[in-house]
Amino acid sequence: MFIHHVYFWLTNTGSEEDKGKLIEGLNKLSKVNTIKKSYIGVPADTNRDVIERSYSISWLLFFDNPADQDSYQTDPTHLKFIQECSMLWKKVVVYDSVDV
Amino acid sequence: MFIHHVYFWLTNTGSEEDKGKLIEGLNKLSKVNTIKKSYIGVPADTNRDVIERSYSISWLLFFDNPADQDSYQTDPTHLKFIQECSMLWKKVVVYDSVDV
Repeated sequence: MFIHHVYFWLTNTGSEEDKGKLIEGLNKLSKVNTIKKSYIGVPADTNRDVIERSYSISWLLFFDNPADQDSYQTDPTHLKFIQECSMLWKKVVVYDSVDV
Repeated sequence: MFIHHVYFWLTNTGSEEDKGKLIEGLNKLSKVNTIKKSYIGVPADTNRDVIERSYSISWLLFFDNPADQDSYQTDPTHLKFIQECSMLWKKVVVYDSVDV
């Protein structure tokens, strides 16, 4: 199991229009066939000191193995997503993890 | 769907013993009955500028709804976990998200 979790901060913070465009792009991106499961999220209402909630979109992907995630990175659908949507975000933070 | 993703940084960075203790604690914690699915992970081998890989353990939980996550926070098993294991980490970062 390979878990790829990406958090996006929008260039236009708080823009519902840009958030919608990014979600639309991610929905298309979710069709990449090495992706086992995908989840698009927004920050929950929880609010404690340890909670990071300044991002706009959470993009959580499950792959069967590291090779499938490598393949996703260079998949034409992914490259097209980056080309079409990368202007929408100013920052991404990625956490990649594998099961123990 | 409520996704609760916690990243732990060990007090004794790189201690395999403490990492093992934390994993043992998380395995017990995973029995809380509001948890729908749980995943314990370690950083993958991927390494790009946008990837955060300085943490030691990834703890990803799925709940059916925000109320179940609230209940988890005060579940006796969770409180016991914090009591028994909190000395093992020096930092946690939490990302809570809900589906759009």
